[in-house]
Amino acid sequence: MTEHRETAEEALEELSPDEGERRRMQEAYESIRDRALEDLEEYDFEAQVTLVGSAARDTWLEGDRDIDVFLLLPPYLDRKEFQEIGLEVGQAVFPDGRVEYAEHPYVQGVEDGYDVDVVPCYSLDDASEVQSAVDRTPFHPEYVERERFEGFSDEARLLKAFCRGAGVYGSDLRTHGFGGYLCELLVLHYGGFQEVVEAAADWTPQVVIEFQTAERSHDDPLVVVDPVDAERNVASVVSEDSLATLIHHSRQWLENPATEAFDVEEPIPVSEEELRSYVEGRDTYLAAWVFQAPDVVEDQLYPQLRKTETSLVEELERQGFDVIRSHVFADDRATLLVEANVGRQSKVERHEGPPVYVEEHADEFYRKYEDSDDVVGPYIDDGRYVVERPRRYTSIEEFLESDAVFDLALGQNLEREIERGYDVIVDEELTSLLDEFAVELASHLRPGL
Amino acid sequence: MTEHRETAEEALEELSPDEGERRRMQEAYESIRDRALEDLEEYDFEAQVTLVGSAARDTWLEGDRDIDVFLLLPPYLDRKEFQEIGLEVGQAVFPDGRVEYAEHPYVQGVEDGYDVDVVPCYSLDDASEVQSAVDRTPFHPEYVERERFEGFSDEARLLKAFCRGAGVYGSDLRTHGFGGYLCELLVLHYGGFQEVVEAAADWTPQVVIEFQTAERSHDDPLVVVDPVDAERNVASVVSEDSLATLIHHSRQWLENPATEAFDVEEPIPVSEEELRSYVEGRDTYLAAWVFQAPDVVEDQLYPQLRKTETSLVEELERQGFDVIRSHVFADDRATLLVEANVGRQSKVERHEGPPVYVEEHADEFYRKYEDSDDVVGPYIDDGRYVVERPRRYTSIEEFLESDAVFDLALGQNLEREIERGYDVIVDEELTSLLDEFAVELASHLRPGL
Repeated sequence: MTEHRETAEEALEELSPDEGERRRMQEAYESIRDRALEDLEEYDFEAQVTLVGSAARDTWLEGDRDIDVFLLLPPYLDRKEFQEIGLEVGQAVFPDGRVEYAEHPYVQGVEDGYDVDVVPCYSLDDASEVQSAVDRTPFHPEYVERERFEGFSDEARLLKAFCRGAGVYGSDLRTHGFGGYLCELLVLHYGGFQEVVEAAADWTPQVVIEFQTAERSHDDPLVVVDPVDAERNVASVVSEDSLATLIHHSRQWLENPATEAFDVEEPIPVSEEELRSYVEGRDTYLAAWVFQAPDVVEDQLYPQLRKTETSLVEELERQGFDVIRSHVFADDRATLLVEANVGRQSKVERHEGPPVYVEEHADEFYRKYEDSDDVVGPYIDDGRYVVERPRRYTSIEEFLESDAVFDLALGQNLEREIERGYDVIVDEELTSLLDEFAVELASHLRPGL
Repeated sequence: MTEHRETAEEALEELSPDEGERRRMQEAYESIRDRALEDLEEYDFEAQVTLVGSAARDTWLEGDRDIDVFLLLPPYLDRKEFQEIGLEVGQAVFPDGRVEYAEHPYVQGVEDGYDVDVVPCYSLDDASEVQSAVDRTPFHPEYVERERFEGFSDEARLLKAFCRGAGVYGSDLRTHGFGGYLCELLVLHYGGFQEVVEAAADWTPQVVIEFQTAERSHDDPLVVVDPVDAERNVASVVSEDSLATLIHHSRQWLENPATEAFDVEEPIPVSEEELRSYVEGRDTYLAAWVFQAPDVVEDQLYPQLRKTETSLVEELERQGFDVIRSHVFADDRATLLVEANVGRQSKVERHEGPPVYVEEHADEFYRKYEDSDDVVGPYIDDGRYVVERPRRYTSIEEFLESDAVFDLALGQNLEREIERGYDVIVDEELTSLLDEFAVELASHLRPGL
């Protein structure tokens, strides 16, 4: 057995749920299923209840607490009936459950310590008839069941845990990483965990893996055409950085196999001392824009925070600030953290006009500033008219505290919260965030791989 | 008569030398010529003495104090003899004259208040035989004499004075502007001052004017093929900015003809109060790098200063400093003045490595910084490895005071002076430069057109 295999086997001992764990999950699922079927009997149609996700495909990791249960409802139901019945059954199963919203509403509850989603979907004969992404999900276990090889579950567990260890496990819109089904498809395609990692170490984007011929083109860095839907890229959510991170960790594993590759490292919370020494030692400018987090799921919150972050960083760069790094995180409050080389600039900015020979535009520019008292110039440099005009905002703090932030591309749920008020917290004052974000700040103060 | 013509005629009254002035210059020239011829009689060859430049072509401006006299020596003299005889005759004419160096040495002296250059050149039958640029000069008056039209001298005077008013008169390497001969050729080509200006207002670089078919290609923004040398661009020295400046002033003249266009505006020296209020009001960072000016002519000094300026600005920009404007000027001391948005940066700089998928280079980068204690990272951003490493110089002052300045592309004569020592003068302390550079600083504090 090679060193790599030995290390993987050793890790597997910790990753595979034992008999007791399997039985416990099965019992939890059966209890949910039975309650759901009992409630469904009240309706005058045939309906089924099915386990989907990693539990159904026997690829779940020891310690995973998620069970996904689908209610397969008849395709002739209209959308309104379908949604009402889905919620009604979910709430019958979990009278204390929470209603969540994805493509359509569903109920979340807890069964014997497991987090359970009870999701309605249309019962279809063929994946090509799908009306929504959710409807396709029940076909995934079927496909994997048909194609699995001896030892497949362990190989899939290894890859999932490896992605988790690298911080890129999950198809949610916070992680933009590798979901469970994607990991399984990669293992099916390459034949095992080690084979996936060997391939990934040499990947050059765009990487395309076709379980069937793609029916449309994708811009994503990784394209894995869904075996049950030729139009869908199972890896569409994988970001450039998540892909690069997997490539990096794959090379590290090949060079030096270690069981730590499968461990989740809990970040050490940032202390007040660490934060102060970071700020002082780097002499950079750190500003946190803090407001109440809107009450939406993470898959809605994070894309909005990222959009706002991108817009803010672009605007600051446009204004001549040199942003070194930025982060977003949320708990009760949401925080956009920006670290810039310098937080305050001079009172003037160079504003370049057109080349003098471009007659009409150049004339217009010259006339605009010719008699202006608050600019220096126009003068000519590199063949262009140039003026130096007053800067609108001489510091990042001043900008964040102005109404100009509402001209940024803000996520729709954020805009309302920001309008209600926000704080701008700078440099040493960031210690006031440690109560809520000591762990999240670690990702900024200690970025790594 | 149009408004433009009337204004030009009015200006001409001030620009044309009167009878007395003409006679005085003629007498000065004849006296020099006679002394030179007398001395040349000692040699056993035929030689001539000739007036060249604007005096010879009757295009000099009232108040011009320059007379250029050429000694036409036989082409069979070898370089050494030729130079010795040139100097000997020059010194016989001006026993107190100074020896200067261009393509070869020559003597400068003063005659009745005129600054006189006595320059040796080979006497050739045809401009195509020229051995150096100087040898071509005697052919210029011949060509202009042959092609001139009625009123040519006045038109040429108008264009020269117009260029002078715009600050772009002179083919020297400080001005990089329009020389006298170039102005005359433009007037010959377009037919008059007004016609040149009308054409210039619409110029789009590259502008090419061929008195004969060019025998080689030129990259310069303005190309005027010398009628006496098909290989030469008479306008090769005209910079992009000088060209743009002439275009600008031409448009201004067409829109609003005023005799002020022909005036030379003496800049008001910068006062201590103005300098202080400039520095404080803009909150920028001003640094002057001051050293002894080497003892070379301006045509050698300014290209070296500009080269050093370009290299310094590029290096500062590379280090992340945002340079708004820079200037060079020299008197006893030479000064490189740099105005930057901000003079001090944080202690870290972002250093981007290759995309992670570029295996070999990426690995190399990662290994280099993996265990480095003084960097943050490597982390992944936009698919690349990134580290934040300590900045070498956190301020422009610190950079200028370091040995790193010797890695800049310094002009050869400057390097020696800089090695002997220099000062770095910052912000309000710049007032200490006012004794020497109060006029020159005006071009920085009040850049204009």
